[in-house]
Parts: sequence; structure tokens; C-alpha cells
Amino acid sequence: MQFGQSLGLIAGALVACSMIPQLIRIFRLKSAREISRLYTILLLLGMLGWLGYGVYFGLVPVIIWNAVGAVLVSLLLCAKLKYEK
Amino acid sequence: MQFGQSLGLIAGALVACSMIPQLIRIFRLKSAREISRLYTILLLLGMLGWLGYGVYFGLVPVIIWNAVGAVLVSLLLCAKLKYEK
Repeated sequence: MQFGQSLGLIAGALVACSMIPQLIRIFRLKSAREISRLYTILLLLGMLGWLGYGVYFGLVPVIIWNAVGAVLVSLLLCAKLKYEK
Repeated sequence: MQFGQSLGLIAGALVACSMIPQLIRIFRLKSAREISRLYTILLLLGMLGWLGYGVYFGLVPVIIWNAVGAVLVSLLLCAKLKYEK
């Protein structure tokens, strides 16, 4: 695999997986007061936009990790709506 | 400008700017207990990785918005370190 593709796969894995400890923290604390609802909504829309960009240009790492990221951010949005006070 | 470039610019703007309401919320509440430190660190590393990917493939929207995003996530990391309890 060429260097650029590997870099994209690693970068995407880091960004998408960064959401996992954040989700764990919210579900453990059962509180999402500090999470901005606008943040989760804009982030979700942005990831769906990157997904479209990846499909348009055939960029495999962009497609894979923004799809994974969009699912994880959707979970964060669910957690926000469930736990916000 | 072609459709794909516009899509990338819009998607990147959404992802990078999503951090702004989150930062405002943390600075207003003066609390970052719910923000995972690992999340901010992984996200920052990932954005720097995407920046490298953008430079490698000459993808302008990827470069611009991951540079902006990396600055904003650095601010979130500062806020986390300042306000975590």
C-alpha cells in the first residue's frame, strides 16, 4: 500500500476511534450537559459531507472512516439527547 | 469550482466549525469533566494525519479544514486541561 493511503487510513482511524473514549465517558457519567448539541449535529452533517466527497473522488480511507465516524457521532447525538439536563 | 471540491469545502467547514459551539459551551460552563482527554488527543493526532494526507495528495479542502480543525481541537485540549476536575 502506498504511503498516502496508509496515512489516510491511520488518520481516519484516529479521528473515528477518538469518539469511542468520548462515548464511553458520556455513557459512564450518564451526563452530557457539557456536550454541545449543535456540535454533534454539525459534526454529523460534516462527516456525511466528507463521505460524499470520498465517494465522488474514490478515496477509500475517506469513505471508510467517515462512515464509521458518522455512526459513532450518531451515537453521541443519541447520548446527548438521552442524558442532557 | 467543481462539485467535488465544493462538497469537500462545505463538509470540512461543518466539521471544523462544529468545534466552535463545543468550545463556547466548555468555556461558558467552565467545566470539562465530561470531555474525554483521550478523545481530544486522538482527534488532534488524527487531524494532523489528515493534514498530511491532504498535503500528500494535494487536496485543498482537506488541508485547509484539518489545519483549522487542529487549531480548534488544540483549544479544546487546553480547555480540558484547564477545567477538568
